[in-house]
Amino acid sequence: MVDAYIFDVFGTCVDWRESVAREVAEHLPGVDAHAFADAWRGEYQPAMERIRAGGRGYVALDDLHMENLAIVSERFGVTAPDPEALNRAWEKLDPWPDTVAGLTALKRQAIIAPCSNGSIALMTRLARHGGLPWDCILGAEIAQDYKTKPVVYLASCAALRLPPERVMMVAAHNDDLEAARVLGLKTGFVPRPTEYGPNQTTDLEPSADWDVIATDLQDLAAQVGA
Amino acid sequence: MVDAYIFDVFGTCVDWRESVAREVAEHLPGVDAHAFADAWRGEYQPAMERIRAGGRGYVALDDLHMENLAIVSERFGVTAPDPEALNRAWEKLDPWPDTVAGLTALKRQAIIAPCSNGSIALMTRLARHGGLPWDCILGAEIAQDYKTKPVVYLASCAALRLPPERVMMVAAHNDDLEAARVLGLKTGFVPRPTEYGPNQTTDLEPSADWDVIATDLQDLAAQVGA
Repeated sequence: MVDAYIFDVFGTCVDWRESVAREVAEHLPGVDAHAFADAWRGEYQPAMERIRAGGRGYVALDDLHMENLAIVSERFGVTAPDPEALNRAWEKLDPWPDTVAGLTALKRQAIIAPCSNGSIALMTRLARHGGLPWDCILGAEIAQDYKTKPVVYLASCAALRLPPERVMMVAAHNDDLEAARVLGLKTGFVPRPTEYGPNQTTDLEPSADWDVIATDLQDLAAQVGA
Repeated sequence: MVDAYIFDVFGTCVDWRESVAREVAEHLPGVDAHAFADAWRGEYQPAMERIRAGGRGYVALDDLHMENLAIVSERFGVTAPDPEALNRAWEKLDPWPDTVAGLTALKRQAIIAPCSNGSIALMTRLARHGGLPWDCILGAEIAQDYKTKPVVYLASCAALRLPPERVMMVAAHNDDLEAARVLGLKTGFVPRPTEYGPNQTTDLEPSADWDVIATDLQDLAAQVGA
């Protein structure tokens, strides 16, 4: 079907909320760890938006996470004893139960790589933590910008020397797939209905007729014959 | 000892000469396949030198290989029926017998990545061909320049968010290690005495007291306790 599958990672491949909350509970006992994790993640889009809009040059997500940790810590009235160690929570996100098996199956058929807003360093360490068998690391850093800017998808295809129509973007977020489809990439949707916790209201269903709509990454692999 | 090992690939991890000669024999029967492979590789440094010297912007090695194939084909008075297919010889280079075991051992201890002049696309397909278990792909493309320019080593360390002294450059070429050492990287040497064929005269011995001097990549892994 395609020569490469590229993936959103936070939410699609890994459960950032439970994993970050676990690290927050360890570093900041007494804080509502899930509320802190949600607030930390809440600063993610605003921080990237300044860069996407051109108001700031490219800064790696590791550094944005660190800045956002300071903002959220002040709001919660707490100070992490070792903020750099806490910031590495984002390198220790656990895969969803189907992720490694699904990626391993897809890798037998085609190239697999993250097309994430995480840096090369962050994606590399995350892969080692969770056993994600990527062939290479693509995404924001090689494009020096953040999704959903077109350059991130196009730079990832170009780095593989593939035209967009030979690449499938896989994500749990409809806006990610909308951005990829308009550029000519194939699209694959997997819902992650608890990414934002038990009361999630967004991305519970596909918003369009994506090329593949699967229940999880193992099902996606099966649907494409991998 | 370090947090990451980065590797020269052509010659150090894979046997380009025998592998390219095999493909040449298939695409250009009647040509002296080893002489053609040597001549093709002979255009490698001159092509990169124009870019290193600033006379040409960064062009991926895949494209330089294609240009060089035209030059060498003309010199040999032959025309490959499918030059693009023959150019993919560089994606099908076989690892030396110790490479996969050595890299696999080192990967248990630290991050492993190519720091090669090959592009992300080329290194990705080469890894899939030979089963090279890289954590990520670093090197020329992320630096937009070619070794032995300092930026290639420094951009590779920076992409891992590691200071040079926490990274070891591993190569079968003394000049690669000289360039890395002056920037503060650790250095590991493995000889590949038949890389250029049975009459090789260069890089048979280490030219300096590199941090690790090993017989092959499995020995290197053993020496660093991996």
